[in-house]
Amino acid sequence: MRREKDKIKIIPLGGVDEIGKNLTVIEYREEIAVIDCGLSFPDEEMFGIDLVIPDVTYLIKNREKVKGIFLTHGHEDHIGALPYVLKELNVPVYGTKLTIGIVETKLKEHNLLSKVDLKVVKPRDIIKLNSMSIEFIRQSHSIADSVAIAIHTPMGVVLHTGDFKVDYTPIDGCVADFARFAELGKRGVLAMMCDSTNVERPGYTMSETTVGETFNTVFTKAKGRIIVATFASNIHRIQQIVEAAERYNRKVAVSGRSMENIVAVAIELGYLKVKEGVLIGIDAINRYADNKIVIITTGSQGEPMSALTRMAAQEHKKVKIQEGDMVVISANPIPGNEKLVSRVINQLFKKGAEVIYEALADVHVSGHACQEELKLMHTLIKPRFFIPVHGEYRHLKQHKELATNLGMPKANVVIPEIGGVIELTRSSIKKTDTVVAGKVFVDGLGVGDVGNIVLRDRKHLSQDGIVTVVVTIEKVSGTVIAGPDIISRGFVYVRESEDLMEESKEIVKTALLECEEKHITEWATIKSNIKDVLRIFLYERTKRKPMILPIIMEV
Amino acid sequence: MRREKDKIKIIPLGGVDEIGKNLTVIEYREEIAVIDCGLSFPDEEMFGIDLVIPDVTYLIKNREKVKGIFLTHGHEDHIGALPYVLKELNVPVYGTKLTIGIVETKLKEHNLLSKVDLKVVKPRDIIKLNSMSIEFIRQSHSIADSVAIAIHTPMGVVLHTGDFKVDYTPIDGCVADFARFAELGKRGVLAMMCDSTNVERPGYTMSETTVGETFNTVFTKAKGRIIVATFASNIHRIQQIVEAAERYNRKVAVSGRSMENIVAVAIELGYLKVKEGVLIGIDAINRYADNKIVIITTGSQGEPMSALTRMAAQEHKKVKIQEGDMVVISANPIPGNEKLVSRVINQLFKKGAEVIYEALADVHVSGHACQEELKLMHTLIKPRFFIPVHGEYRHLKQHKELATNLGMPKANVVIPEIGGVIELTRSSIKKTDTVVAGKVFVDGLGVGDVGNIVLRDRKHLSQDGIVTVVVTIEKVSGTVIAGPDIISRGFVYVRESEDLMEESKEIVKTALLECEEKHITEWATIKSNIKDVLRIFLYERTKRKPMILPIIMEV
Repeated sequence: MRREKDKIKIIPLGGVDEIGKNLTVIEYREEIAVIDCGLSFPDEEMFGIDLVIPDVTYLIKNREKVKGIFLTHGHEDHIGALPYVLKELNVPVYGTKLTIGIVETKLKEHNLLSKVDLKVVKPRDIIKLNSMSIEFIRQSHSIADSVAIAIHTPMGVVLHTGDFKVDYTPIDGCVADFARFAELGKRGVLAMMCDSTNVERPGYTMSETTVGETFNTVFTKAKGRIIVATFASNIHRIQQIVEAAERYNRKVAVSGRSMENIVAVAIELGYLKVKEGVLIGIDAINRYADNKIVIITTGSQGEPMSALTRMAAQEHKKVKIQEGDMVVISANPIPGNEKLVSRVINQLFKKGAEVIYEALADVHVSGHACQEELKLMHTLIKPRFFIPVHGEYRHLKQHKELATNLGMPKANVVIPEIGGVIELTRSSIKKTDTVVAGKVFVDGLGVGDVGNIVLRDRKHLSQDGIVTVVVTIEKVSGTVIAGPDIISRGFVYVRESEDLMEESKEIVKTALLECEEKHITEWATIKSNIKDVLRIFLYERTKRKPMILPIIMEV
Repeated sequence: MRREKDKIKIIPLGGVDEIGKNLTVIEYREEIAVIDCGLSFPDEEMFGIDLVIPDVTYLIKNREKVKGIFLTHGHEDHIGALPYVLKELNVPVYGTKLTIGIVETKLKEHNLLSKVDLKVVKPRDIIKLNSMSIEFIRQSHSIADSVAIAIHTPMGVVLHTGDFKVDYTPIDGCVADFARFAELGKRGVLAMMCDSTNVERPGYTMSETTVGETFNTVFTKAKGRIIVATFASNIHRIQQIVEAAERYNRKVAVSGRSMENIVAVAIELGYLKVKEGVLIGIDAINRYADNKIVIITTGSQGEPMSALTRMAAQEHKKVKIQEGDMVVISANPIPGNEKLVSRVINQLFKKGAEVIYEALADVHVSGHACQEELKLMHTLIKPRFFIPVHGEYRHLKQHKELATNLGMPKANVVIPEIGGVIELTRSSIKKTDTVVAGKVFVDGLGVGDVGNIVLRDRKHLSQDGIVTVVVTIEKVSGTVIAGPDIISRGFVYVRESEDLMEESKEIVKTALLECEEKHITEWATIKSNIKDVLRIFLYERTKRKPMILPIIMEV
C-alpha cells in the first residue's frame, strides 16, 4: 500500500494567525477529513457584520473527497459555521453526544436539521474511512464532552489536541485520556497540532473545582438574590452553580436564549444534573423570597442584547436589579470586551447590587492549557513534527519556542498560515503552495455579499458621515433646472451649520457653471468636479472628510 | 471671618464615573480654583470623534470667580483640554516646571502660547488667593514633577492627591513628600479626594526601577537594534532606556511626534539627562551598526498612526523592521486597546523581530497606587470626609469600601458624580444640586458641533450603510418626471445586487403612484411612504436596516 509519493496534507482554513473560526483540512490520498467548523466574531473594523466564517472554496472544489466534519467540542468557534458550510457541502458530521446535541439546536434554528447526517461518537471510537481512521480521545475543556482527534494513516498518526486544559478534578469526573495519549506517544506520532491559546501564561490553569469553592463563599454571604452570568456552554460551571443552589436551598431560574437552549439540551442528555423541583421558570422568581433565588444568565461579556446587560439597564422584562442582589460575573472579559463588561459592572453597582468579578475573586478559570500543561502534552505525545494552532501569530511563535525548548529541532516545527498547505511525509514537513482561503462575512441574510468595498464605505460613513448633492439637469440644453440640493447625515448638526450648507451650495453652483461654460457634459466629469471642490471646501472649514455623493437627475 | 453658612463646594466636571478628562471645581466664597483640565479619548461608540473634553459651562457662567487652573501633572487626561477651555476662559495656569513645559508645547500647536498666563510653581509653594490658598505637594507618578494639591480654607483643608503611586526608589530620587502629608494629617484634613484607578489591585505597585532591571536583561540579550515603545510622557522610563543605552554603548534615536516633543522639553528643562553624543537623529541610525542603536518610539498602545504601528506595517519612512530587531513594548494596553496592540505584536513577529511585552517580561509598572498604597495615604491623611475620584463607578465604590474598612464612617464618604455639587462644612458632607456638565466632542475643527443626533446617524450608517432615493417631480402636476434613482453606499456590493436595486425601484415607483392616486402632495408624507415601503422590503430581503434617505427635486 505504501507509495513513493505518499503524503499527508494539512491545510488550516481558519484558527491560525487568529483566535476563532477553527477549521482544519486533513487530506490523504483521495480523502479529506475536516476538523471543526467554527465561526469568529467580527472585530471593530468589520462594521455591521454579524459573524465571520471560513472561506471553504477549497472544500467545495474537492467536495467528492470530503468524508465528514469531525468536531472536537461544541463551542461556537468550533461548530458555529456548520449551518453555512453544510448548505454548500452536505457531509456527515461526527461529534460526541453533547456536541451533537448543541449542533442540533443550531441546525434547527436554520431549518437544516432534517437534511444533515449527524453521527454521535464516544471517546475511543474510531471512524474508519478508506485510507484514514479518525479516533476520538477524551479531553478536558471549559465545555463537557470535549475530545482530541487522532488521524491514523499508513504514513503515521496526526494528533489534533483540540482545545484543552489539564484538570485532574473535573466536575464530571471524566479526566482526559492520558493513557491513550501516552500510548500513542509511545507508538510514535508523526505530527501534533496543539492549542496555543494560553501559551503566554506560565504555570498551570486552575481546576474548575476551584470556582466551586468561590461560589460557596458567595452563597454564604449573599442575603438577597444571586445572579450568576457565565458562558452558556460551560455546563460544568452551571452544574456547580446548581449544586451550590441546592446546598443553600435556593431555586434556580435561567435567563437568556442560548443559556435556556443549552441548559435544556444538557439536562436532556444527562450532562447537567438538577434535583427535582429546583429549576423554576423565570416568571416564577417572584413567588419566592429573594434569598431563595439563583438566576443563571448570559451576558458575561457585556454583550449589548444579552440578559445581564438588559438587567443592568433595567430593560429586562422579568428581572429588575435591586438593592441586595449579588451579581457574579463568572468569566473573564475576552480581549476587546473589557469596556462592555465594565459598563455593565458600573450599572449594576449603581442599581445597588453587589458585584463579584474577576478583579475581586476567583470566579473564573480558563479552559486552555498554560505552559506547564502544554509541556505535559508535548512530553506525552513526543511528535516528530509540530504545528502550533489556535492562536494569533504571537501565540504560535511562543508555542514554537516552547517546543524547541523541550528539545524539538526548529526545522521540525512549522507555523501554519490560513490556506497554506503543509505537506507531511514520514521524514519531512514543509509548506508547499496555498489554496483559496479567508474570511466570509455574514451580515443579516447575506453570506459573502459584504466585501471590502462595502466595509470601507461603512468605515468612511462612520467617521464623518455623508453629504449628498443632487442636481436636476435638462437633457438637451444641459442647464441646471433644479438644485443643487445638499443633504447631510452624520456630518454636522444641521441647524447649527446652515451657513456651511449655504456656502456649499454656492460652491457647487459655481462648479456647475464652470462645467457648463467649458461644455463639459460627461456626468462622470461633472460629478468628480463637484466632489473635488466640495471635499476641499469642507475639509478647510471643518477638517472633516465626509463621503460626498453627487447625484445628477436628467429630465 | 467665620460665617454661619460658610461652605466649600466641590464639583467634579470630569474624572469621576469615568477614566479621563479630569477637572474638579473647588469653590469657596467668591472664588473658584480648578484642579486639572484633561481630555479623554473617544470610546468605540463615538464614531469619528477625535477627543472628548469636559463641558465647562459652569466655569464660564462663573468666570469672574475663577482664579486659576492648578495642574497636578502633565498627562493628557489632566491637561489636554486646556487649549479648548482657555479659548473660552483665559485664566492663569499653575503647574510645576515640567508640567508647564508640556503645556507650552501644546499651546504652541494651538497658537495660544502668547495669550495665556502660565505660572511655574515648585512643590511646597503656596499660591494665596483671597480666601483660599493652594499648596503643591510632591507626589510620585508615571510622569515626573507630579504633585498633590492642598486647598487651605478657613473651613479646613481639602486635599486632592492627584494621580499617584508610592515609589521609595523613584528614578529622579524625588520621593513623595510624606512628611508634609503626615503633617497635614496631624493638623487635620477636612476632606480628601483620592485617585481610585488601581483600587481593585491588591498589594503594592512595583517601583519604576524594577523596569530598569528588565531593560538590563534585554540589552544584554539583544544582538541587533533595540526599539522601545513607551508613553512619551514617561520621562523616567525614557531616562532608564537612555541609561541602559549608555551602559551598553548604544546611540539613542527618537521617533514619533509626541516623543520628540516631550524628549526635547525634558532635556531642555533638565528632567532627562543624556550624555553628550548619545542622542542622534533618526536619519543617522543607518550610520551605525545595528547593535549600536536604540530607538525610543511612540505606539505602545498600537495607535493606528503611531511610529511603532507604522514600523510594524513597514510604512515608517526611516525604520524598517528587520530580522534581529528586538522590540520592547514598555506599557500595558489600556482597556480597549488590547486588539490594536496585539495586531502590532503579530506584525512585528512576522517581520522577524523579537518582541518583549507585558505577557512575557516585567517591562512596565503602573503609575497608580494599589490597595496597600491607598491605605497608606488614607492613614497619613486621616481625613474627616472622603471623596473617591479618578475612576469608573466600580472603582469609586471599591474605594469607598476600602475607606470604610479602615474605619471611616459610611456617611462620611460621598461617591461623586459629574456635575454633582458636594457641599462641605466643618461637620457635614452632602450632595446638593447639580450643574450643567458632560461631554463635549471635538471633531476636526468643530468643538461641540457633533451631538447625539450626528453620532446616532454615524452609528446607523456604520452598521448597514445608506440607500438614497431621488425623484424629480413636476411642480404643478405632481407627476414624476425623472427617477426614482437608487444609490447605495455601504449597504450591499452593488454589482451582485442589481436585482435587489431594480426591485427596490419598482417598490418606490408603486409607492409614488399610490401617492399620486391618493392626491398626496405633502413631500413629508411622500418621503415617509417611500421610507416605509423600502425599509420593510429591504429588511425582508436582507435582514439589514440601512439608513434610507429620500430626496424629492421639484422642477
